[in-house]
Amino acid sequence: MDPMIVMQPDLAFEESLEKIFQFIEEKRYFKARDELLKYNEADIGEMFEEMLEEPDIIESTIVIYRLLPKDVSVEVFSYLPSDDQLKIVEGITDAELSYIVDQLDFDDKIDILEELPANLVDKILEKTPKDERRLINTFLNYPDTCAGSLMTPNYISLRKDMTVGEALAYIKEVGMDAETLYTCYVKDTGRKLMGIVSLSTLVITDDQIKINDIMHTDYVCVNVYDDQEDVSEMFKKYGFIAMPVVDKEHRLVGIITVDDILEVIEDENTEDIERMAGILDLEQSDKEYLDKSVFQHVKARLPWLLILMVSLMVTGAIISYFEDILSKVIVLVAYMPLLMGTGGNTGTQASTLIVRGLALDEVDYDDAFKVLWKELRISFMIGLVLSTLNFLKIIFIDGESPMIALTVCTSMILIIAFAKCLGGMVPMLAKKIGVDPALMANPVIGSLTDTMAVLIYFLMAMIILGL
Amino acid sequence: MDPMIVMQPDLAFEESLEKIFQFIEEKRYFKARDELLKYNEADIGEMFEEMLEEPDIIESTIVIYRLLPKDVSVEVFSYLPSDDQLKIVEGITDAELSYIVDQLDFDDKIDILEELPANLVDKILEKTPKDERRLINTFLNYPDTCAGSLMTPNYISLRKDMTVGEALAYIKEVGMDAETLYTCYVKDTGRKLMGIVSLSTLVITDDQIKINDIMHTDYVCVNVYDDQEDVSEMFKKYGFIAMPVVDKEHRLVGIITVDDILEVIEDENTEDIERMAGILDLEQSDKEYLDKSVFQHVKARLPWLLILMVSLMVTGAIISYFEDILSKVIVLVAYMPLLMGTGGNTGTQASTLIVRGLALDEVDYDDAFKVLWKELRISFMIGLVLSTLNFLKIIFIDGESPMIALTVCTSMILIIAFAKCLGGMVPMLAKKIGVDPALMANPVIGSLTDTMAVLIYFLMAMIILGL
Repeated sequence: MDPMIVMQPDLAFEESLEKIFQFIEEKRYFKARDELLKYNEADIGEMFEEMLEEPDIIESTIVIYRLLPKDVSVEVFSYLPSDDQLKIVEGITDAELSYIVDQLDFDDKIDILEELPANLVDKILEKTPKDERRLINTFLNYPDTCAGSLMTPNYISLRKDMTVGEALAYIKEVGMDAETLYTCYVKDTGRKLMGIVSLSTLVITDDQIKINDIMHTDYVCVNVYDDQEDVSEMFKKYGFIAMPVVDKEHRLVGIITVDDILEVIEDENTEDIERMAGILDLEQSDKEYLDKSVFQHVKARLPWLLILMVSLMVTGAIISYFEDILSKVIVLVAYMPLLMGTGGNTGTQASTLIVRGLALDEVDYDDAFKVLWKELRISFMIGLVLSTLNFLKIIFIDGESPMIALTVCTSMILIIAFAKCLGGMVPMLAKKIGVDPALMANPVIGSLTDTMAVLIYFLMAMIILGL
Repeated sequence: MDPMIVMQPDLAFEESLEKIFQFIEEKRYFKARDELLKYNEADIGEMFEEMLEEPDIIESTIVIYRLLPKDVSVEVFSYLPSDDQLKIVEGITDAELSYIVDQLDFDDKIDILEELPANLVDKILEKTPKDERRLINTFLNYPDTCAGSLMTPNYISLRKDMTVGEALAYIKEVGMDAETLYTCYVKDTGRKLMGIVSLSTLVITDDQIKINDIMHTDYVCVNVYDDQEDVSEMFKKYGFIAMPVVDKEHRLVGIITVDDILEVIEDENTEDIERMAGILDLEQSDKEYLDKSVFQHVKARLPWLLILMVSLMVTGAIISYFEDILSKVIVLVAYMPLLMGTGGNTGTQASTLIVRGLALDEVDYDDAFKVLWKELRISFMIGLVLSTLNFLKIIFIDGESPMIALTVCTSMILIIAFAKCLGGMVPMLAKKIGVDPALMANPVIGSLTDTMAVLIYFLMAMIILGL
């Protein structure tokens, strides 16, 4: 997409949206379209997202979509999330669909073809020129989370014996959309990538100079099967706006631009956040919360709940085992939530920080002892503050004996120390053995500390209260 | 930074780092420098990060840094995190520091000046030309998280009556670094921003055409005091590589480039993730885990732990209140962790999804009823599965009476329903009243569900067991 899209920032978006819904109710579709056209394509896309959320006006929405100027309709389509694109596809004719797919940027085209039912894809590909059809089929075969799925084959190729003047004339001739034009690629006759040169270098260099003399031959590139997470790491590290993608013979197969990386970063963050909360989306769908069915939500949430339930049952069994102690000093039960809760909260604080640190490469396995030592000191300070407060509260407010207070408070210090160290170490261990640390964060730490909290508590009760 | 930095991707980074540490031990500093120089500046920066982590070799590290070619040393400096930059600053001469600061890109310059002690800043500014000094002082005054703190004043200004040919000649003359050159800005005589035109448009347009005829006048821009989170939202929405920043008189004061936005996105995500885990970094420092002192960690973690402790105390008080019931049927205690834990886990799953949905604009307050209805159905399905399994386990494995099993399982269904709905609603409510939803996620939901879980459990026990 051209980064400079038309926009009227002062128009009240919400107000227009209300007007449009009003027009739809009155079946004044042309009016609705004209209201939409006051905005740029990204904003129109957002309005269609809102309209497509209402199942009862879906037909009117499609009618209005079909009333849009053709070029606008293509742009708007490219801004929509894939499930909204499918809703549109179902409502338009095959000819309209073919036109849209034909006009889309190559990477957007691949994205929508991946979502469409197979018979529709075949129908579209029938009308596509043979060369492009072959290219599309190659692209459709790249796994969803690898560099290949992010790239576009639309880039500027130069020859190394061109002059800068010739190169600029060539660029003017092929004229492409903005995002893919800022870096040009120099290939040898075997399509191997030899070097890269930025458009800005071309523009500020004398026309007579040879590309060979200004191209960078020690560029950074990624392999077509590299994981998208690694690709986004490289974008972050080097601050690129585009990066070449090569196959294993080092032939240039496409480029990835930074605007697609912004999405990858958000998706990877969402995945980490969800995993930390014990939500496991095995389908790796990028559907939004509201678009997922109840059953899909259940499928993503149930596995961890079942695993955690087992651990909670173990905690319960430990309590059963010590029932005698409890029935002798029933007041001990009242402090169980405090100890288990504080253990869980302090543990997940530590694990969250370490999981994030690992994800951003700020911490790694070699730092294990530093982390342990830091968490130990932190937990000592926190334990001291919390247990002092609790000691006073148990004696002066609850009116319990000092021995009860001592039992609760020493347990608390030990539990916090245990939770913080566990929270710091488990994600590192996970990383070491090749498991996603995010999976090991809150749920696992939370339930492990629960179990340990109960054990420590009963142990302290036996020692201090002599039970 | 020029996006095409030299890189030798095949050299083994870790191996070289080991060599360098070896050279340092043997005090062969030139050897160490030569090893470093096999890499590009971003990688050298990463090696210095590793070296600066070891306090005992800090002096050797500085010596090696000073042996780097001047241009390399400036680039490397710009890649370092700010606390490593300060370590370098302390070891080099004032003249070297002045040189580095002078050579840095404007936005990097501002970043380091913000971190330096005031007397050092004054010393550096003394040697800066008056115009630039004034500019620097303006930039230093922008709050840390606003658009102004991200921008650079280095952009290409064109006049609307220039032709494309004149514009390209002008760009060639002023020749600037790559990241800021891809979009050119057209200002009127009052420095107001009139329009923008991309370098790619210039390159593919005929030389005789006037800028006035090809510039976009309906561009998207941000205000200098806009929050950086909103700015990054706009980058994500529109897929820009640069965006103009204007003051309230709509005068162009700088531009923001996408490479700085990648960092903002990660920082905002980190903030959300930490807040969800009850970690509150009031200093908003961007220090990494290991660089924060024990005391800073304690300060960030203690506030929520204290608040949550109060809520856990309430839960304890409820248990105390029902002590009679417990002492009559002590076996009920054994199922408390299961109910509280499952409540917490299911609740935070829901709140995590909604907090993330709100952050990515996938869900908003208007969707409250949809969310509630979805979470109710989800919790019913999950409750059914978990409570059936527990019912069987309590009767056949634990050998308890069906009435106990019924008490636990009906409680479980109610607790899950309550937790899921609370988890879905509280973040939305927070957003509505202008509180960061991330603050309302795991800790708050977890402790609220704990309290409710205990209440529901005792209520069910009284009803079903007739206590």
